[in-house]
Amino acid sequence: MKVVVIGGGTGSFTVLRGLKDKVDDLSAVVTMFDSGGSTGLLRDEFGILPPGDVRRCLIALAEDNILRQLFMFRFDEHSSLQGHSFGNLFLTALTEITGSDAEAISHASKILRIKGRVLPVSFDQAHVCAGLENGHVIKGEKNIDIPKHDPNLRIIKTWLEPSAKANPDAIDAIVKADLVVIGPGDLFSSIVPNLLVDGIPAALKKSRAMKVYVCNLMTKPGETSGFKASDFLREILKYDCTPDLIVCNTAKGTPILLRKYADQNQFPVIVDDKEIAKLGVKLITGDVMSAPELIRHDSEKLADLLLKLVR
Amino acid sequence: MKVVVIGGGTGSFTVLRGLKDKVDDLSAVVTMFDSGGSTGLLRDEFGILPPGDVRRCLIALAEDNILRQLFMFRFDEHSSLQGHSFGNLFLTALTEITGSDAEAISHASKILRIKGRVLPVSFDQAHVCAGLENGHVIKGEKNIDIPKHDPNLRIIKTWLEPSAKANPDAIDAIVKADLVVIGPGDLFSSIVPNLLVDGIPAALKKSRAMKVYVCNLMTKPGETSGFKASDFLREILKYDCTPDLIVCNTAKGTPILLRKYADQNQFPVIVDDKEIAKLGVKLITGDVMSAPELIRHDSEKLADLLLKLVR
Repeated sequence: MKVVVIGGGTGSFTVLRGLKDKVDDLSAVVTMFDSGGSTGLLRDEFGILPPGDVRRCLIALAEDNILRQLFMFRFDEHSSLQGHSFGNLFLTALTEITGSDAEAISHASKILRIKGRVLPVSFDQAHVCAGLENGHVIKGEKNIDIPKHDPNLRIIKTWLEPSAKANPDAIDAIVKADLVVIGPGDLFSSIVPNLLVDGIPAALKKSRAMKVYVCNLMTKPGETSGFKASDFLREILKYDCTPDLIVCNTAKGTPILLRKYADQNQFPVIVDDKEIAKLGVKLITGDVMSAPELIRHDSEKLADLLLKLVR
Repeated sequence: MKVVVIGGGTGSFTVLRGLKDKVDDLSAVVTMFDSGGSTGLLRDEFGILPPGDVRRCLIALAEDNILRQLFMFRFDEHSSLQGHSFGNLFLTALTEITGSDAEAISHASKILRIKGRVLPVSFDQAHVCAGLENGHVIKGEKNIDIPKHDPNLRIIKTWLEPSAKANPDAIDAIVKADLVVIGPGDLFSSIVPNLLVDGIPAALKKSRAMKVYVCNLMTKPGETSGFKASDFLREILKYDCTPDLIVCNTAKGTPILLRKYADQNQFPVIVDDKEIAKLGVKLITGDVMSAPELIRHDSEKLADLLLKLVR
């Protein structure tokens, strides 16, 4: 079975980790518009594509344990290496040596002996922009991910500057897939940016794959404050992506943990089934959470649920 | 045949590169007291052993081409990565992950698929010190390698601070070797530091290997200004290492090239055979130079000559 996971952040990492040993043809289509932290600095300084999301997916699919640990390693931020991620430096050096982002990813995939493929959604340099309901525009993934704006202002529109063309291999993988998993992940910094790339919505439309959107567990201030499951789904639909199914979690975190999240203005995403039904997308619910003490998707549970949908 | 190469800098690189495919049991015993550049910075910041000389030997013995290139790669010195060598960062990250220099080198050796072994001469943290003829003391390999003192002042004594104990694997390799190659390389920053380690001169004495000292092609200001071949040899003997043979080059560089070197106060090492004879070490001469246009030892020529001595 051919499975494609679309996203980029830790959400994709979790999905890929779970599917890695259960699926024989697995591809990760990865957003390439990160502009923060170690990744952003390397992007600015070396003019390379941002390595962060590719790195995370490579780690998720890596078979070699010591190299996996190396890729995850981050240098002390008070050292001359300024908190750089080793994996990012690895990809940067490979890009400089081979002269191409695609070659660098292909070599890194071989060195890490990854199971599956990591496909940048695009090889074009672009930045994500977001228009707020008050008319202000935010530029750069970093400023969406870690907002400086009033976090209660809603993002009403996102786009890429300049526009970006899809990686033909990503299009091909989507078109030929049996299952496409979109999300989970930060809506406007990890998921939607993939849908903003010229050619991706069309590939999704063309594909006969079952398309599943995995909804986030928690809201995020500045991106999805106050969002219910139907709000997440509505945004996905807005960007010309029509999933067959939406997967929502039903397990609950402990009250103590939920209070800690609440202190950060993060709240469980309410599953408003009637609103979802109105959008014409079938709702699948289940316990796909790590544990009541850890509000994260569980790799194994999520992979099992996803594969049951197509088997 | 078991061959051990003792040194650390580009000299060892050249010897190892030549012997790599001609010898089935090859070990590099490597100085660990570098304190300059990328290596020195990482040593200071991370408290690790200096990775520079290990890195060079790993590169010399590596079979995997793309990883070899990666290990050689150096980031732009004007970037946030301040001219760090990628290979050094690789070794630093591996040391942080595994918690041990020995483990880091062993993993790197596997990842690079090296032919042979790289053995740090010691796992103790120490600095090379040099006493000049005017009584001044220089501390740190960096200050010997790139001298700030009057380059005509002779180094009359070197020692380690604090003293360092030999790596048992290095002792073992030396004792069991059939051929030990000492040099070529910067006398007081790459070669002699190995002989300053407790246990190394004794291992050389105990070993029944043929011991060959490969003399440098050119003098170096601040370390070996005005040195003839016998002066190099005399220093080696002073540090309790008695080679059976000294290999000196007879080929000459082009006048244009020699003039360029002369501008840097570097001159061809004069082979003073009578003085060498007085020291009781047999002299072997031959053309072991790259080309008249490149005053460097040639890997192949040098390896062939060395192996003829023991076969």
